[in-house]
Amino acid sequence: MTDQLIIFDTTLRDGEQSPGASMTKDEKLRIARQLERLKVNVIEAGFAASSNGDFECVQAIARAVKDSTVCSLARANDRDIARAAEALKGSDNARIHIFIATSPLHMEKKLRMTPEEVFEQAKLAVRFARNLQGNIEFSAEDGYRSDMDFLARVCEAAIREGATTINIPDTVGYAIPELYGNFLKTLREKVPNSDQAVWSVHCHNDLGMAVANSLAGVKLGGARQIECTINGLGERAGNCSLEEVVMAVKTRRDYFGLDVGIDTSQILAASRMVSSTTGFVVQPNKAVVGANAFAHASGIHQDGVLKARDTYEIMRAEDVGWSTNKIVLGKLSGRNAFKQRLQELGVELESEGEVMAAFAKFKELADRKSEIFDEDILALVSDESVQGEKEHYGFISLAQHSETGEQPHAEIVFTSAGKEVRSQADGNGPVDASLKAIEAHVKSGAEMVLYSVNAISGNTDAQGEVTVRLQNAGRVVNGVGADPDIIVASAKAYLSALNKLHSKSDRIAAQG
Amino acid sequence: MTDQLIIFDTTLRDGEQSPGASMTKDEKLRIARQLERLKVNVIEAGFAASSNGDFECVQAIARAVKDSTVCSLARANDRDIARAAEALKGSDNARIHIFIATSPLHMEKKLRMTPEEVFEQAKLAVRFARNLQGNIEFSAEDGYRSDMDFLARVCEAAIREGATTINIPDTVGYAIPELYGNFLKTLREKVPNSDQAVWSVHCHNDLGMAVANSLAGVKLGGARQIECTINGLGERAGNCSLEEVVMAVKTRRDYFGLDVGIDTSQILAASRMVSSTTGFVVQPNKAVVGANAFAHASGIHQDGVLKARDTYEIMRAEDVGWSTNKIVLGKLSGRNAFKQRLQELGVELESEGEVMAAFAKFKELADRKSEIFDEDILALVSDESVQGEKEHYGFISLAQHSETGEQPHAEIVFTSAGKEVRSQADGNGPVDASLKAIEAHVKSGAEMVLYSVNAISGNTDAQGEVTVRLQNAGRVVNGVGADPDIIVASAKAYLSALNKLHSKSDRIAAQG
Repeated sequence: MTDQLIIFDTTLRDGEQSPGASMTKDEKLRIARQLERLKVNVIEAGFAASSNGDFECVQAIARAVKDSTVCSLARANDRDIARAAEALKGSDNARIHIFIATSPLHMEKKLRMTPEEVFEQAKLAVRFARNLQGNIEFSAEDGYRSDMDFLARVCEAAIREGATTINIPDTVGYAIPELYGNFLKTLREKVPNSDQAVWSVHCHNDLGMAVANSLAGVKLGGARQIECTINGLGERAGNCSLEEVVMAVKTRRDYFGLDVGIDTSQILAASRMVSSTTGFVVQPNKAVVGANAFAHASGIHQDGVLKARDTYEIMRAEDVGWSTNKIVLGKLSGRNAFKQRLQELGVELESEGEVMAAFAKFKELADRKSEIFDEDILALVSDESVQGEKEHYGFISLAQHSETGEQPHAEIVFTSAGKEVRSQADGNGPVDASLKAIEAHVKSGAEMVLYSVNAISGNTDAQGEVTVRLQNAGRVVNGVGADPDIIVASAKAYLSALNKLHSKSDRIAAQG
Repeated sequence: MTDQLIIFDTTLRDGEQSPGASMTKDEKLRIARQLERLKVNVIEAGFAASSNGDFECVQAIARAVKDSTVCSLARANDRDIARAAEALKGSDNARIHIFIATSPLHMEKKLRMTPEEVFEQAKLAVRFARNLQGNIEFSAEDGYRSDMDFLARVCEAAIREGATTINIPDTVGYAIPELYGNFLKTLREKVPNSDQAVWSVHCHNDLGMAVANSLAGVKLGGARQIECTINGLGERAGNCSLEEVVMAVKTRRDYFGLDVGIDTSQILAASRMVSSTTGFVVQPNKAVVGANAFAHASGIHQDGVLKARDTYEIMRAEDVGWSTNKIVLGKLSGRNAFKQRLQELGVELESEGEVMAAFAKFKELADRKSEIFDEDILALVSDESVQGEKEHYGFISLAQHSETGEQPHAEIVFTSAGKEVRSQADGNGPVDASLKAIEAHVKSGAEMVLYSVNAISGNTDAQGEVTVRLQNAGRVVNGVGADPDIIVASAKAYLSALNKLHSKSDRIAAQG
């Protein structure tokens, strides 16, 4: 058995399925490029058949990414598989990932199919896919709650038809390391041609054990692929988190004896990019990427650490991309320095026009703020308006006032389909007044389900990054806005969310 | 061996050691009461000898809590132990928790002691404590990285001297479930009197495996106490999270076969209380208590779940305290209804005067906002000024204005040692201007290391809750402020943090 562990990242597919985490094509492309820099082996770019938008995302990523395998999910039917193959056409290094549920509960209640029907459909689907694409992964959804003998038959057939990776998900996060590892071990023993495929684990974190379960699947069960996401993003409590599982394999190489190709110095950048794109905060006590994960490194002294660092540290903060928050650019920095810094941060803007627009914003910020940190730059470009997407609504200007004992008031000027709109309103606070002023004209009727602010680099003279999540008619979208004025950032975030609601895209549900 | 699993919560001790998570006595008391309602078996209330403030916290909690054992940490020396015993005097149900490091690295580099010296000190410390208190826990810090035979000798001696609980921490979060479970199993076999103590696990989450490691310590290693914290709060990546480990034992009773006495319906309230008190956010994809953990339950439909709930759910959201966000009170609610709701939410205000003050704030809020949610009420009372602590600084009023193209400006009126101060400033944004106006007078020189906002219950017409974390001369404090006007909430939070900086209290570092 090989000592190489394959890291399969599904941030852009399973991660994106989290309510509220949906991303635009540009955002997905940017994250895909960062995943490539991170050297993940496989990037699951989306579920091509689920919507035209997802198809385009998979297609764009397949064309842009060279060093990682690009994968699309597909249900076990010819239409889905053909769509996936079509979306992946641009890539020389593509994979189709077919899934069908095999647990009694899912077959009976969700699919309304008999086990024999599922068996046949799985077999035919892999056969069909194999004619379009050489690299096929087959997933038995809710595999861990499936009947072992039936599951073994399905896996054997999938391998015989040409599947090269077999994935056994713990779809509902029900597993325990020992049980899951042994389940996989026994299953592989029951599949006569098991050595002709790489076995894979895909664990959810509902009971907080996704990392340990995945690793037991590797150590005990013989799996050599782990499916995971940045920050553990994913439905409900999320998936196995890439940064934790990778650092566990590296830190405990004495136990696992496996190689992972990940460039860990890119982990923190990936984490921040995914967090700021989705608006899903990373809690301070999150392992590896939380603000406190290496708290000793950030000036909080502790006696033991001062005497000998490894008394309390098993990893080095630098190894995962933490460094002192250095001032990178200032008022006098030129366009080339700015462009180079963008590249180092993993930001690739599509056109020279966008770079120019971002640089103009940078200069404007540098006029107001003497020290520009990496976080400021990332906030600057994550501000939607830089990214050159066609926008229905655009921010122009805002004036607001609040005073104890009076009703807060805001007046906003923005564009709607190119036309300038001026609107004003009172509210409970200046943010409320500003957003009510926008709603007074737009009348979206959307419900706000999340409003959060993070000041970049601590201080309030930094830019504030506001995330707004709106829900309307079953759709959930995020908008992000950045500005040193928190009220302006809020208005920008709201307009950005409205833009996303405006560009309709429907999608169907995939597997958990 | 008993089937009862002891849940030992250390949110108030190990959790509070997180940089930035320090709490006031009132905050700790409130959380201790919630832990009692949650029915945790043991509450570690603090580290009495570390500071006078911590001593008072332990004392207050020991007097207030009746149904849980109250515990204080102590280093293995007579002074620490005597302080712990003194602080615990008010309680009929107290425990002293003695620790000393046993790993070669910690003994040599941190303690600068030989193993024989550590052995003797551990023995004498337990002997000394046993004369003051019947319930003694002994912890071998960095136990998992200790020499097995040496560790066995220390544990045997501790039990012989009267320790009734023996805890083997994975202090640096280095363990793997299988290895940790077997380590504990072998260790217990090597300790001749091991059956005379309850064995305990204390795992850190640096590699994301604290929950799985703790459970392997129980299942494989025979431990019957788990040390954990609400939200997995704790140094670096934090401790084993109470909500995850408890729900794992409950959900997989088929595997563990253990009873836990926790009232799980109190979990969410505990999580929110700890999060709002410390300003440590809970990420949406956090298991059990994250906003998305039961996303199906909150209106996001998914085909499978509609057909049969258990296709994607292994726990019920209601079981851990999630319910629809119901409107609980409005403009017309009276003082008794308000008081009763406070009780149900686990908020106990110290005096009738404080209830009156909170009720006045509630009425004021109800005038501005038609629907008052539980979250609003919690924000209202977590606003420091309600809590009757003696304040050096107090908010009076604020006026601020910002307009595109102009410099944001704020004018604030506040009290400083009872005297009214009026101050104004410009800033990069209205929050910055307001805080600069405060600093113009106070001149604290503190560095702001965190600024975050959470809108309560989504909408911006709700109250905003702002957390500000200040660092000055090695001390880190949090301030929280709530108001529908985010700028006012920011000013209140800043003043509250300044109050904490003003009331000096120094503490020494405890174990990890």
